[in-house]
Amino acid sequence: MKAEIISIGDELLLGQVIDTNSAWIGQELNKLGVHVHFKSTIGDSREILLKTLHESNERSDIIVMTGGLGPTKDDLTKHILCEFFETKLIQNEAVLKWVQSIFSKRNLPMLSSNNEQAMVPENCEVLWNRNGTAPGMYFLKNNKAFISMPGVPFEMKCIFEEEVIPKLQKQFLFPSIIHKTILTASIGESFLAKKIASIEDALPSNIKLAYLPSVGAVRLRLSAYGNDTNNYSEELNQIITSLYHCIGEYIYGEEDDTLPQVIGKLLNLNKKSLATAESCTGGYLAHLITSIPGSSAYYKGSILAYDNAIKENILHVNKDLLINHGAVSEACVKAMAMHCKDIMQTDYAIATSGVAGPSGGSIEKPVGTVWIAIATPTHCIAKVFNMGDHRGRTIERTALMGLDMLRKELISTK
Amino acid sequence: MKAEIISIGDELLLGQVIDTNSAWIGQELNKLGVHVHFKSTIGDSREILLKTLHESNERSDIIVMTGGLGPTKDDLTKHILCEFFETKLIQNEAVLKWVQSIFSKRNLPMLSSNNEQAMVPENCEVLWNRNGTAPGMYFLKNNKAFISMPGVPFEMKCIFEEEVIPKLQKQFLFPSIIHKTILTASIGESFLAKKIASIEDALPSNIKLAYLPSVGAVRLRLSAYGNDTNNYSEELNQIITSLYHCIGEYIYGEEDDTLPQVIGKLLNLNKKSLATAESCTGGYLAHLITSIPGSSAYYKGSILAYDNAIKENILHVNKDLLINHGAVSEACVKAMAMHCKDIMQTDYAIATSGVAGPSGGSIEKPVGTVWIAIATPTHCIAKVFNMGDHRGRTIERTALMGLDMLRKELISTK
Repeated sequence: MKAEIISIGDELLLGQVIDTNSAWIGQELNKLGVHVHFKSTIGDSREILLKTLHESNERSDIIVMTGGLGPTKDDLTKHILCEFFETKLIQNEAVLKWVQSIFSKRNLPMLSSNNEQAMVPENCEVLWNRNGTAPGMYFLKNNKAFISMPGVPFEMKCIFEEEVIPKLQKQFLFPSIIHKTILTASIGESFLAKKIASIEDALPSNIKLAYLPSVGAVRLRLSAYGNDTNNYSEELNQIITSLYHCIGEYIYGEEDDTLPQVIGKLLNLNKKSLATAESCTGGYLAHLITSIPGSSAYYKGSILAYDNAIKENILHVNKDLLINHGAVSEACVKAMAMHCKDIMQTDYAIATSGVAGPSGGSIEKPVGTVWIAIATPTHCIAKVFNMGDHRGRTIERTALMGLDMLRKELISTK
Repeated sequence: MKAEIISIGDELLLGQVIDTNSAWIGQELNKLGVHVHFKSTIGDSREILLKTLHESNERSDIIVMTGGLGPTKDDLTKHILCEFFETKLIQNEAVLKWVQSIFSKRNLPMLSSNNEQAMVPENCEVLWNRNGTAPGMYFLKNNKAFISMPGVPFEMKCIFEEEVIPKLQKQFLFPSIIHKTILTASIGESFLAKKIASIEDALPSNIKLAYLPSVGAVRLRLSAYGNDTNNYSEELNQIITSLYHCIGEYIYGEEDDTLPQVIGKLLNLNKKSLATAESCTGGYLAHLITSIPGSSAYYKGSILAYDNAIKENILHVNKDLLINHGAVSEACVKAMAMHCKDIMQTDYAIATSGVAGPSGGSIEKPVGTVWIAIATPTHCIAKVFNMGDHRGRTIERTALMGLDMLRKELISTK
């Protein structure tokens, strides 16, 4: 069962709009066990869409199109679908009533271009668009499904979930794919690959492993293909158990977990609170923590001591300490963490101090040098890193590393 | 001159990663005057990449590929390029030294898989990857350019800007296009369009205007097509002058300016300093300000008072005020800004307090209600907004609005 996705619109080729639809559709089809083997993006052009439709008819069983269904002149999809299926547009009364009701509800006059929205190819099944005026369309041809939906994401998603998935499930018998993803931090892709080489080499042929790296983290995705879902699920679980044995200390979560979510759950579970004292991360650490809804339950706040005077006056870091050791030092970052914990009256605190660059480095403390400290109810630890010479990535890596260090402390004291 | 973009990686087809690269590359090629007529996304599969390469060779002059160049087993691009160009991999000494230097700088041992990064097809020109270990590759075949780059966005962008564009400009004769971009904040796309309708209607046929909206800002890009560059440049400047007359109050910069850069320049110019007191923005405002290299010259720090106790104890917001007016109020946000300015001993301060959601809203103060205050050397202003019901966008919009409010104060006191 092979599917492909066709995204239609000049704005996508020009890069004015990032195509998030096709990733979302890819995920949804994949969950159904349908293999998306190809995606293409084309402009608002009759020739290219016709050619792409003919090609997709040769290579795919399910063809999902988005875009080109608006009321303006450059929206051609519907007319070209008529040409491809050798049919004509007819007025659909139900759609016309729906469009009219939307306009009257919003007290807007109907334009003739809006009437056009109710014209659909004679051979299609109309897919209800609860969020807009352009209906989706479902065509069957030689047991292949062609689906056309508007490009507006919230319209498309609703049509796909409510109309397309049930139709596809009725039409086709889907094979099974199961995916499981585990998430690692504080280790690079190649080191990870080396550590789990023996597990990877021993994978059965129906199970694939993919490395999905991002700044500061690598996701490992295991995919099992076949028909015996129960068996494969068991097989995947066994491999994941081996991975935990082998690289457990680096695994911070599974599936869609994020580090800020994971530490949020751990803090909530243990009824503990957190504050931060940031220097080089410049507020980004706080931003990651507060991006989680409900973080105010365990997170009290942050003192961003960008200037040394703030470290001294608000975080009460000793002046002599700053003179003798400098702001980028174990002594300073530990003082920041411990005083922050006291001032904010929390159980835990994370502190960061480093040289994010591009200037400010020295031979002793080159750009990228970063100290991170974690103050816990019983002790305070600090580590030094070199995060490289890119300011933005140093900030990102440091924030994630701080969260991962806190995670390890929270786990070890459970 | 036709270009196409091939994005390679199972994670793209599965929808686990949204392809932002191809939109960015599309924009860059478009700026050069190159028409991107097709984009495709394919998996890590030998057959499909080979087939796609043969097809692209038929239909395009410039073929830009991203992805599949990592050190792990599922990364196949390099091997398939050898097959397509009927060549073999050879070790590139310069790349090897570069990879080794990266590992030694970070005090990490080299693995044999890292050595692999220095193996490149014999017939390619190596494209320098300043931000990573996988080099890009540039191939010429029958006056067609094939470009292969890693999929990690910051690596790809740097290679494209520094290596690919100069090579393409040397190889091909591009039509002349001049682009000028002006940047607006605090006004929506349709309001902007209405305000500049008469300017837009009067544009000569060789000049096009594009609206590029993002959260909290709209970029207006003017593009002049033709051969008489000098003339067109003059014409563009006149239109931009009209735009300043018409919507000048909303324009915060041009080309690649960002709001944090612009306020940084204004503060430096006037030798003034800034601090922030954040609640609902949760550190994101500070993050935007500190993302600018050299921001420590004017930015002292932030107090993130997520918890009301921190507003009271560190920002000295009066307890009765908090009880009578609540944290999301004009009185509170003004107190936050003025006290922050005093505590941090700065000339200016920005304060934010709002209901980011998804919970915490009330009938009187629904989710999205945000107060922003600016304390200046002479006075303090505050405004209230409704930023909508999406937590992430409320945080982003509030931070940008705070910066734009500060910008207006800095300009008016110049």
